[in-house]
Amino acid sequence: MCGFPEACHNSLLCHTATEQEMLCIFGTGDLGRSLGQRLFQTGYKVVYGSRRPHSCGPLPPGTQVQSMIHVAAAQSARLVFVCIHRENYNFLETLAPQLKGKVLVDVSNNLKKNMYPEANAEYLQRLIPGAQVVKGFNTLSAWALQNGPSDASRQVYVCGNSLEAKQAVIEVATKLGFTVLDRGSLTAARELEDFPLQLFPEWRLPLQLATGLTAFFFFYLLIRDVIYSYVVNDKDISFRIMASLANKVFPIVSLIMLSLCYLPGVIAAFLQLYRGTKYKRFPDWLDRWMLCRKQLGLVALALASLHVLYTLIIPIRYYVRYRLAAHTISQIKENKTSPFDTTMAWRTDSYYVIGILGFGLYLLLGITSLPSVSNVLSWREFSFIQSKLGYLTLFFCTFHTYLYGWDKFLQPSSYKWFMLPGYMLSLVVPSVVLVLKLLLLLPCVDSTLTRIRQGWERTDPEQERKKLLLT
Amino acid sequence: MCGFPEACHNSLLCHTATEQEMLCIFGTGDLGRSLGQRLFQTGYKVVYGSRRPHSCGPLPPGTQVQSMIHVAAAQSARLVFVCIHRENYNFLETLAPQLKGKVLVDVSNNLKKNMYPEANAEYLQRLIPGAQVVKGFNTLSAWALQNGPSDASRQVYVCGNSLEAKQAVIEVATKLGFTVLDRGSLTAARELEDFPLQLFPEWRLPLQLATGLTAFFFFYLLIRDVIYSYVVNDKDISFRIMASLANKVFPIVSLIMLSLCYLPGVIAAFLQLYRGTKYKRFPDWLDRWMLCRKQLGLVALALASLHVLYTLIIPIRYYVRYRLAAHTISQIKENKTSPFDTTMAWRTDSYYVIGILGFGLYLLLGITSLPSVSNVLSWREFSFIQSKLGYLTLFFCTFHTYLYGWDKFLQPSSYKWFMLPGYMLSLVVPSVVLVLKLLLLLPCVDSTLTRIRQGWERTDPEQERKKLLLT
Amino acid sequence: MCGFPEACHNSLLCHTATEQEMLCIFGTGDLGRSLGQRLFQTGYKVVYGSRRPHSCGPLPPGTQVQSMIHVAAAQSARLVFVCIHRENYNFLETLAPQLKGKVLVDVSNNLKKNMYPEANAEYLQRLIPGAQVVKGFNTLSAWALQNGPSDASRQVYVCGNSLEAKQAVIEVATKLGFTVLDRGSLTAARELEDFPLQLFPEWRLPLQLATGLTAFFFFYLLIRDVIYSYVVNDKDISFRIMASLANKVFPIVSLIMLSLCYLPGVIAAFLQLYRGTKYKRFPDWLDRWMLCRKQLGLVALALASLHVLYTLIIPIRYYVRYRLAAHTISQIKENKTSPFDTTMAWRTDSYYVIGILGFGLYLLLGITSLPSVSNVLSWREFSFIQSKLGYLTLFFCTFHTYLYGWDKFLQPSSYKWFMLPGYMLSLVVPSVVLVLKLLLLLPCVDSTLTRIRQGWERTDPEQERKKLLLT
Repeated sequence: MCGFPEACHNSLLCHTATEQEMLCIFGTGDLGRSLGQRLFQTGYKVVYGSRRPHSCGPLPPGTQVQSMIHVAAAQSARLVFVCIHRENYNFLETLAPQLKGKVLVDVSNNLKKNMYPEANAEYLQRLIPGAQVVKGFNTLSAWALQNGPSDASRQVYVCGNSLEAKQAVIEVATKLGFTVLDRGSLTAARELEDFPLQLFPEWRLPLQLATGLTAFFFFYLLIRDVIYSYVVNDKDISFRIMASLANKVFPIVSLIMLSLCYLPGVIAAFLQLYRGTKYKRFPDWLDRWMLCRKQLGLVALALASLHVLYTLIIPIRYYVRYRLAAHTISQIKENKTSPFDTTMAWRTDSYYVIGILGFGLYLLLGITSLPSVSNVLSWREFSFIQSKLGYLTLFFCTFHTYLYGWDKFLQPSSYKWFMLPGYMLSLVVPSVVLVLKLLLLLPCVDSTLTRIRQGWERTDPEQERKKLLLT
Repeated sequence: MCGFPEACHNSLLCHTATEQEMLCIFGTGDLGRSLGQRLFQTGYKVVYGSRRPHSCGPLPPGTQVQSMIHVAAAQSARLVFVCIHRENYNFLETLAPQLKGKVLVDVSNNLKKNMYPEANAEYLQRLIPGAQVVKGFNTLSAWALQNGPSDASRQVYVCGNSLEAKQAVIEVATKLGFTVLDRGSLTAARELEDFPLQLFPEWRLPLQLATGLTAFFFFYLLIRDVIYSYVVNDKDISFRIMASLANKVFPIVSLIMLSLCYLPGVIAAFLQLYRGTKYKRFPDWLDRWMLCRKQLGLVALALASLHVLYTLIIPIRYYVRYRLAAHTISQIKENKTSPFDTTMAWRTDSYYVIGILGFGLYLLLGITSLPSVSNVLSWREFSFIQSKLGYLTLFFCTFHTYLYGWDKFLQPSSYKWFMLPGYMLSLVVPSVVLVLKLLLLLPCVDSTLTRIRQGWERTDPEQERKKLLLT
Repeated sequence: MCGFPEACHNSLLCHTATEQEMLCIFGTGDLGRSLGQRLFQTGYKVVYGSRRPHSCGPLPPGTQVQSMIHVAAAQSARLVFVCIHRENYNFLETLAPQLKGKVLVDVSNNLKKNMYPEANAEYLQRLIPGAQVVKGFNTLSAWALQNGPSDASRQVYVCGNSLEAKQAVIEVATKLGFTVLDRGSLTAARELEDFPLQLFPEWRLPLQLATGLTAFFFFYLLIRDVIYSYVVNDKDISFRIMASLANKVFPIVSLIMLSLCYLPGVIAAFLQLYRGTKYKRFPDWLDRWMLCRKQLGLVALALASLHVLYTLIIPIRYYVRYRLAAHTISQIKENKTSPFDTTMAWRTDSYYVIGILGFGLYLLLGITSLPSVSNVLSWREFSFIQSKLGYLTLFFCTFHTYLYGWDKFLQPSSYKWFMLPGYMLSLVVPSVVLVLKLLLLLPCVDSTLTRIRQGWERTDPEQERKKLLLT
């Protein structure tokens, strides 16, 4: 094919760029003008179709405007960008005969989700069945359309039923400098139309959880530390809210959220063991939970990073410096020197070092969840990092917290107003997850689970079916 | 098509890989040899075309060499890689009849920009109009061509007027393991030829600005702190240059550069408000400024990170430890204990904490500007982070600096030699940006701006046009 | 082509999505069921081919099952996914006549490498020469096949001899939501089948090296510091193992590994200078070494980051606080004040600052080696960062270590039990690399090397060939 260029002038694929291709834009609004300007700059001839060609405001220089029916009837432009609001699509129905065989690019968006029973592009296709509707470009801002790809808008999604029509649209998008992702048939149009409306949907739950836990532990520790001290000891230590209190809340919430990343996996494993099959769907809440594990982990990592920074500024804080100096001065005045406590040195150093190693592994997990890094990993490598290294991270961080507690578990002074210290509360979920995971690693449990995951089922499905037939 | 393999032997697209495809390389220089070796290893038959086939040095084993005219005349190789210098292209003109219908891949580069009035590939196309010239592979080093894709050279750009010819080249590149980006028609060749010559063009201005500001503030603070102390107090504190002085310069420059990221957006908004339209182009300097905002922000983030590290090493510095010990000793000797100052504790802790939160947000901005992260964000998400969170970051960092100043504004000792402290100078631009942004958020201003950005214009363009017609 | 839709029903490329395409899956195992379920959900009609269609367990709802021969003979399904174990491929040979002209997608994997003399897909192609075998999807887990692309499994690799068959498979994969990378002809099948089995192959050597060096220096410093102190001074300082000792081992290993990134490049340059040509292959060990430089550098960066964190927690460690307080107390008791040592202040500040700058550059190198960042860099930019900035990083880090040593080189107390301090050992390789690099930068050496790298050879190859002919 195409070996003979003279046979190619009917084909979209084989056009020669020596003659400028003609594109048509329906609608002279903001989006239409931006798109037309950019298309013209890239080397296309652009003609606008307007219902009122004589009163449609200033258009980009180099382009022309005609009545829609005139443009639709013209044979020259095969591609038509539909840049008008969905409410005005019904007008296009009258042009159906002229638009037959043309490629209509629907770039429209809605103001909110589920405004209409069907996607705009599917509605357009229904109105003009003879045309080949392609959904695309709608994820771009008018700014990006006018100025070409910038950081957030290098990718363009298209979908449509005709491969050939899509190919023509992809070619235009590529010439404009965009990277095109083909999302399949026109049934994906709804998804594409929802895309520009979303604002971090998968982050909502983890962020809400983090906010809730942070608020809870903040007020809990506020009562337990600051208000208790004020009421019982009549001492105002409210200045500790800014740094000391926050540096307790952040690691507590971070550890809980990290363990919540691994809890659903453990629950799923026990569910499979209990059911004896992997072919039953998990409950919806478990599915949703598993889908936001990455976001849970990243929010926890952000909180852990804050904990690290809050810890590292400890020695330059006025309060800490004052207390250290006061301690030294009191030692001299009372003329006693506290002996060096080797156990204390071991304990605090271990506490810090385990924390550092846990944070290092945590950062590694965060880096491998960057899209470009996880893309170059094989599935086995990704699961090795996120599962094996993940549990190691959880173990380090939990151990770090246990070392922080040390023997304070046994001191009655820790239980002010019968409220447990915050770090003890934070240890509940991680400890449970680690114990359950240990159970799953027992050889007998592990082998059963592995068999189930390879497709083995406890009840022979064949027998079950026969039973069903008999009843 | 291609359902009948026997009908396919004329087609580039439908070749079967069972018989090795023949490719031709013109030129036996370094690039040609590297390319040929790699092509041969990937499974192609490679024949070199040389003007002096008998004296062209050692060629990769498995390849053969013939005279150019001989190779050009042969029907077998449809693709010809032109690996000769542009200066020798005129020789190819004599082969125009033999090269008719062939795909010529121009891989050449120039030594500097704008050496020739037209791109090498366009020049080649003009010399041999019957061939289908494709520009490509020129962004690769000979090393990458010989060894296959490495980190920096996974991507190959091609452009050309014939889609079919490009497809054939893309196929070869894909087989060699490269990812191909189609940049459109041959007019993009100039851009592709300039690409390997560039060295961080968009980073130049931000880096120059950072260097200039750093140098200015370094000498300013050198005079104000070190030289002033030497001249007036006769004290040599030159050792403070290494860490203390640098830890003043870095945050100052970082804050100014961060605010310079947001200043152009504010200026643009006021310009649109003043003009009453969004359809007038911004001045060139504003456009250029807006295009390097990302780089401005990243350089500022690097300086802020240095500031963080410089701050965190404060307590392990000899000077700081000496001063703290001296302070404790003097307290004991004079037998007075300074009381604990709760206001001071609140103030310094707030200062540090606001700084940490600002830096955390700053890091978040940096992470979302990684290409792989910004690619998965929708436009609304990206603009939420870079705009909303960006202003929040600027606010935190500015507030952090105000807390640093606290009541030093009122102390006459701050104004040595009538020079303002550095942090005061650094507050000017961020404060202006934040005040202007607050003005833009006033409901009446905001609604006007929103209408302008949706395409509304203060003067009806229709009336204006009529006016123009009347005059 | 395709201008007339009615002529297209025979073509894979031009199918209209209005009628559901029929796909066939051979094998009703775990993989087959997962794949079938996903295909059905995406809108395909799915029919299973089974040797025992009446006893193959529960299949995804909406799909049907028939005997293999029946399915193979049916004209409707052009694409057949072969989801059976390689051991059962021989059964397929009997279906060769029915499978002629069909596209067979081999999704199989082996349990370990090199189990069979030829790749599964090549074996399948040999058994059924009339079919068009495409290797693909095998890098996905059953989970990813059932649930669609997740983070680690967005990319699908395919290879095959027939472009048209590959195109059909690519289309299906794209509809399932995957990004497809074409790896060329079926000879790449072996590589694809090995891919899921690998677990960080290129990281193995650097990690082994890091482990070995860490273990060596740990025991070396354990003997030199802790055991020496116990034996000679009878002092138990074992608590220093956790933090102080580790904070010596990590920077030492990090510096050595960083210098090992740059050593092979220097060796290669001297080898080229010695040989007088760039056309001789490097020894295998040098090639392997050069290929893992990135991983060497990233492991070294991880160790350097640990060193930074270990250093920053110094002031909050019990041991350090105790020692500082004890020092202050002893000063007061002996009533002597050590004067402020300006040289000491300069020296320690320089030491810290050079370290910070080195680490900052190091982080920059790490960030630019992220795939998404290095992809947007031109080759010249990438080599500027990794080479120029890399040597600057090495220089800073080496200088940082020399500053740490300062005049301790001259103190006999540094040489306990005739063992050199660890930091001295760590300086050997970096110093050698920097000196060799300096030699290469000498104008006369540099110009010769540049000429060699541009293809010049010391002995004229033409003369050599003539010599060979004469002998």
